[in-house]
Amino acid sequence: MARNRTLPLERGATIGIMGGGQLGRMLAMAAARLGFRTHIYAPAGDNPAFAVAHAHTEAGFDDEAALKAFAGSCDVITYEWENVPVKACDLIDGICPVRPKPDVLRVSQDRVAEKTYISGLRIPVPDFHPVASLGELGEAVSHIGRPAVLKTRRFGYDGKGQARIKDGTDLAAAFAEIGEQPAILEAFVPFEREVSVIAARDATGTIACFDIAENVHENGILRSSTIPAKLKPRTATQGRHIAATLLDALDYVGVIGVEMFLSVKGGEESLMVNEIAPRVHNSGHWTEAACHVPQFEQHIRAITGWPLGDTRRHSDCVMENLLGDEIEATRGLTGIPGAVVHDYGKSEVRAGRKMGHVTRLKLRK
Amino acid sequence: MARNRTLPLERGATIGIMGGGQLGRMLAMAAARLGFRTHIYAPAGDNPAFAVAHAHTEAGFDDEAALKAFAGSCDVITYEWENVPVKACDLIDGICPVRPKPDVLRVSQDRVAEKTYISGLRIPVPDFHPVASLGELGEAVSHIGRPAVLKTRRFGYDGKGQARIKDGTDLAAAFAEIGEQPAILEAFVPFEREVSVIAARDATGTIACFDIAENVHENGILRSSTIPAKLKPRTATQGRHIAATLLDALDYVGVIGVEMFLSVKGGEESLMVNEIAPRVHNSGHWTEAACHVPQFEQHIRAITGWPLGDTRRHSDCVMENLLGDEIEATRGLTGIPGAVVHDYGKSEVRAGRKMGHVTRLKLRK
Repeated sequence: MARNRTLPLERGATIGIMGGGQLGRMLAMAAARLGFRTHIYAPAGDNPAFAVAHAHTEAGFDDEAALKAFAGSCDVITYEWENVPVKACDLIDGICPVRPKPDVLRVSQDRVAEKTYISGLRIPVPDFHPVASLGELGEAVSHIGRPAVLKTRRFGYDGKGQARIKDGTDLAAAFAEIGEQPAILEAFVPFEREVSVIAARDATGTIACFDIAENVHENGILRSSTIPAKLKPRTATQGRHIAATLLDALDYVGVIGVEMFLSVKGGEESLMVNEIAPRVHNSGHWTEAACHVPQFEQHIRAITGWPLGDTRRHSDCVMENLLGDEIEATRGLTGIPGAVVHDYGKSEVRAGRKMGHVTRLKLRK
Repeated sequence: MARNRTLPLERGATIGIMGGGQLGRMLAMAAARLGFRTHIYAPAGDNPAFAVAHAHTEAGFDDEAALKAFAGSCDVITYEWENVPVKACDLIDGICPVRPKPDVLRVSQDRVAEKTYISGLRIPVPDFHPVASLGELGEAVSHIGRPAVLKTRRFGYDGKGQARIKDGTDLAAAFAEIGEQPAILEAFVPFEREVSVIAARDATGTIACFDIAENVHENGILRSSTIPAKLKPRTATQGRHIAATLLDALDYVGVIGVEMFLSVKGGEESLMVNEIAPRVHNSGHWTEAACHVPQFEQHIRAITGWPLGDTRRHSDCVMENLLGDEIEATRGLTGIPGAVVHDYGKSEVRAGRKMGHVTRLKLRK
């Protein structure tokens, strides 16, 4: 079947999504509301996105035949998981456009490449040093000082693959803790707060940012996002400017999550980028409850060439993740006025697993 | 598999939906957001609900084996179409609870039974008279007077199966126009405005009403709903009271749409019930854009025994239906700040067919 993949896509076009988790699920529902079809591609597992999509392919990211068939069935393809192999994206991109483009993954999947790229744009990042061996770790510590954080270059998320290096920490033990993998040593930032900017850019270069969220992590996992973040207006402008600079430099199309550290020194606030997530982001889930166009629809609009939506929020709010068996609380939470509950429909409840979230809106009188 | 169908249902329970149109589709997505599974049952056709449901059965409402298998796979069953045969519902109800209960359909599917029931609750309805033959039509006209509206007792929707009887209208022609079917003659109400109350009742008798919508119909099809309706506070209270009286009398569980005529005489407003729709209702689609808990989620909450949601709206708004090829306008509409677009994903565009809707929110500064 001949496909017309020029932007803007028409209603009824098929959006491919790589990854079958909750982000894919929420993207699929947003796409359906705009009249698009969806096709989810994900390896075998508990893939909650399958249940709300028009079609799905259960296959590995190394299955070239399956990838090609998938690409042939779609009009645009995106990903909900930042660790989709670049090789798979490159293969697909030759058949059907992948947005954001695979080059973005080349930057974001390697912490050293990411930090080098971002600092090259004169955007502040923590001091960092690559670490390939125990010897290099010693060298890195002498450059960066203590305390510092040792992180694997690849596949880190939700605090996994990280070790703190404090005064007295044995370097060999720390390197063993992260599996002696290629790593990065980052200076520990004595931040006041963590914030994030969820922003979108379309193919014509238009950029729209949601209001900045203030995030609390526990054991490396996001617990809550509060909107608006407590920031001086100037700092908020700086945050949006950082996101826009990144989006333009990456020639990015879609929604991005930019996590930042806020430091306060002598009453002066400053921001530093911690990491970028080239996809819809957990700290943007509140937009589903408090904005007219949620981040999921915004992403679909961006990659299909539809107009970006108004990002104003109608309410202040707090989004809390429901981890593991906290999901059993949803029924009770629905009884609270202004609580908007979202259960990802995952079958298996595991400790620490992201099962759902609740956004508590501050209702106006 | 043994099923625990006592209320409240647990997350992961399966909700059966009879009918596969846009209402079923929006119910299925609302159910998914709360972590429920869905199983859609609908006869062959363009069933946009199938694409966002966990399972579907394509079979006729007279296929007893399919109905029984469907009922066996669900924990509660509801309908998105008011003309589902009562016989099918009764059969299913013996296996899996149907909510709202089939008795409600016995009332709502026959305009004479409906008007008789409602007026029996001392709720004002237009004068009416049953018509079984041309002879009875003459008799009815002499009771009711002209102008009047002749409607088939069954299967009327979106203005179908209706004939106006004015001065000079030939009765035989009017009776022929509606196919000489069993009918009802209703006095024409010189209403000022049409309004509707979308209300929910749960199994414990709790009732929650959304704000009253002011509706404009064209050729019997809803064009737009404006919220709030222009009503005196006392009239709005009367409207909510009428809905609550109906819900209690019917021992109703779920969301109902109650369409009313507003008349103004000597500055005094009064309401009269035109008809009831025992399901989520087109004039409640705005709740998806302007309320924290849309009517679709409210219905799912009611039938699963979950708490009813807060019905406050965060914005005034106007919902407009997109009929036929008006659906091609959605992309342009997404460019308007505060416009929330919904495309039902129907493949076939037919003149007058409900293809989607847009809710225009009045944004606060």
